Amino acid sequence: MKAILIIADGMADRPIKELNWKTPLEIANKPSLNMIAKTGVCGIMDLISPGIPPGSDAATLALLGYDALKVYSGRGALEAIGSGLEVFAGDVAFRCNFATVNEKRIVLDRRAGRISNEDAAQLTRSLEKVKLKQSHVKFTFKNTIQHRAVLVLHGSKLSTAVSDSDPGKTGVKVSEIKPLDKSPEAKQTANIVNELMNKFRKVLEAHPINKKRIESKMPTANFILCRGAGKVPNIKPLPQVYGVKGTCIGAAALVKGVCKVAGLDLTCVKGATGTPQTDFMAKAKATVQALEANDFVILHVKAMDVVSHDGDYKQKIELIEKFDKMISHILDDVDLDVTYIAVTADHTTSCITRDHEGDPVPVAITGPQVRRDDVMKFDERACSKGGLNRIRGMDIMPILMNFIGKSKKFGA
Amino acid sequence: MKAILIIADGMADRPIKELNWKTPLEIANKPSLNMIAKTGVCGIMDLISPGIPPGSDAATLALLGYDALKVYSGRGALEAIGSGLEVFAGDVAFRCNFATVNEKRIVLDRRAGRISNEDAAQLTRSLEKVKLKQSHVKFTFKNTIQHRAVLVLHGSKLSTAVSDSDPGKTGVKVSEIKPLDKSPEAKQTANIVNELMNKFRKVLEAHPINKKRIESKMPTANFILCRGAGKVPNIKPLPQVYGVKGTCIGAAALVKGVCKVAGLDLTCVKGATGTPQTDFMAKAKATVQALEANDFVILHVKAMDVVSHDGDYKQKIELIEKFDKMISHILDDVDLDVTYIAVTADHTTSCITRDHEGDPVPVAITGPQVRRDDVMKFDERACSKGGLNRIRGMDIMPILMNFIGKSKKFGA
Repeated sequence: MKAILIIADGMADRPIKELNWKTPLEIANKPSLNMIAKTGVCGIMDLISPGIPPGSDAATLALLGYDALKVYSGRGALEAIGSGLEVFAGDVAFRCNFATVNEKRIVLDRRAGRISNEDAAQLTRSLEKVKLKQSHVKFTFKNTIQHRAVLVLHGSKLSTAVSDSDPGKTGVKVSEIKPLDKSPEAKQTANIVNELMNKFRKVLEAHPINKKRIESKMPTANFILCRGAGKVPNIKPLPQVYGVKGTCIGAAALVKGVCKVAGLDLTCVKGATGTPQTDFMAKAKATVQALEANDFVILHVKAMDVVSHDGDYKQKIELIEKFDKMISHILDDVDLDVTYIAVTADHTTSCITRDHEGDPVPVAITGPQVRRDDVMKFDERACSKGGLNRIRGMDIMPILMNFIGKSKKFGA
Repeated sequence: MKAILIIADGMADRPIKELNWKTPLEIANKPSLNMIAKTGVCGIMDLISPGIPPGSDAATLALLGYDALKVYSGRGALEAIGSGLEVFAGDVAFRCNFATVNEKRIVLDRRAGRISNEDAAQLTRSLEKVKLKQSHVKFTFKNTIQHRAVLVLHGSKLSTAVSDSDPGKTGVKVSEIKPLDKSPEAKQTANIVNELMNKFRKVLEAHPINKKRIESKMPTANFILCRGAGKVPNIKPLPQVYGVKGTCIGAAALVKGVCKVAGLDLTCVKGATGTPQTDFMAKAKATVQALEANDFVILHVKAMDVVSHDGDYKQKIELIEKFDKMISHILDDVDLDVTYIAVTADHTTSCITRDHEGDPVPVAITGPQVRRDDVMKFDERACSKGGLNRIRGMDIMPILMNFIGKSKKFGA
């Protein structure tokens, strides 16, 4: 028995007036999602708990079966690991942006004009040479996609209890990083990151790439904004918990990071980009293929969340329809007599508020031994009448592991 | 107001292909169970949490209102108490089997040919005389039914963190009992049980009963296998929690043990055997009678679970129908104006996997003041649409106690 958990990032939504008070998922033409609902058992799911909008990091931890309220330790380390960096126990990592600030450190552009990967890579090579005063702490800085980057502090006596330097908007001053508790670790960590930010700034201001950018009238990438201090969560990997082998098919660094920490392999798929332009069919093929060598596959699709944050419910509907075609391919090509398929979202992202919301997400599980219910459609309202009733995000992994015969009895 | 909680061991199941993808409970003719659903409020229930297959010990603790994840302390002590032994705080108890091993300790028969109660009793009398090296630890060994027995170590500095000697199957060697943590208590406990196993073996090999068994070509009972080290869980008895008096009607030692630890009386019923041959009607009569002197009665029926572990869904259907007739008797004879009746299972036992599964169980509660819903049948799927929605095993006791006016307000 095998399992596929398909996570549609931010697919769930709230009713939208312009859609006659329906959700994008209710409007979309989605025969394959409906087929999973029709042949499966459905429900609604609170990733964390009712009314709590989940961050993608906490939600993904929950979907892998962990109690995010207990194990969550910040986003930075997960993002860094997903970007291919090594983060060890005790290290503290941050998500970073190349940004444009003026001489008073007022943020002019949080993304430095969505700087190209090439420019960011050249700047990064210079930043790597910066030396810290305290020799017992080392750092790794890596640019990822466009303006995005990650910073890892390696050493001891580091803390995630520090504020962000990224103010999250333009027109305001870069925040100094401050300790959030009274521990010496938090103070030291804040000092180190502030020191790095200042030294990075000097290197960036003087860099030939930025001189070239000024000449070309492009925003200079003269500051590194940091946010989301995180450590590696202390979790037991899924292969140890269940004795299973699993892989993750997804392009988003965060999701890859969570899956890697959870002991899953990462399957690279050409054309999978974590954007609305991702190659849905390539992901579908990779999923079917990955199932051969694994007990289960996590298939994550980021696209719907991206356009929800832009409030573009029309494109959201189109992307749900592409997502549905991807699922149709999977349903055609896997052996449904020996495969369980669950589909859900990691959170509701409202096209109206353009943010994550605490409303539950729909979930459906099909497979040979599920107690089929009479839900005929996969959407937020139809699934709320299903046989699963209302579960938590951290329930879905034990449920799937139970169906494929990998769960352990509690008690005797 | 009085309450009856009827626990049908392993009655819930998954859809079975040969039953046209229905469950045994969905197929069975069960007018009385349906009557409880029709006149009651229904739901589904996770004994521990969704997807987690519950052991019978943890499930029964949950059904009595305890948080099994917090209080569970192994099965051995509960089984020993249910078999009539005294187990004190600090004691460690094991479930044991009379077994047949060869000279290399390869297990040939885990049940020594399902040795008779008489032979087991005679062997036990000799085992009782074995002396341990360490005089501060005493032991009690008692045979129960056929090959089954229990062992209690009385003393201090004992631990449940020891492995089983029972390998759980034939053709492999008896396992040495090993400490599962680094505490001196675990090491001492493992040493003592290993010492006992060796001394028991010598006594058994030389015993006239076994010589007689060899002559009669019956498997010798020449080894005692141990498993399920447990202490008495640290729980507040129900009479203290709710100020109630309750009794348990059930034959399974484990259930009796849990009920006794929870402060309930045990009502013996002639003909109640914990097997498919149990006297259902005698149990029904005893339940009605016990209600007179008690606030509530736990009525436990083991039969359905036994045949589920054998994969015999046809007999499961027949037993559910017998179980239903037992309930019909109860419905006829109690005063429904002053009685709440809840019926549920302690776990799903799949006739296909022949094991406990993590799927939820149906639950229905009838009584004068329940909010009747529109569920008309008592089965896994019908109940999932009921007014209780999805609850946890540990919720059912507070719900019943509240209906009979025995719950305490939380807060003021």
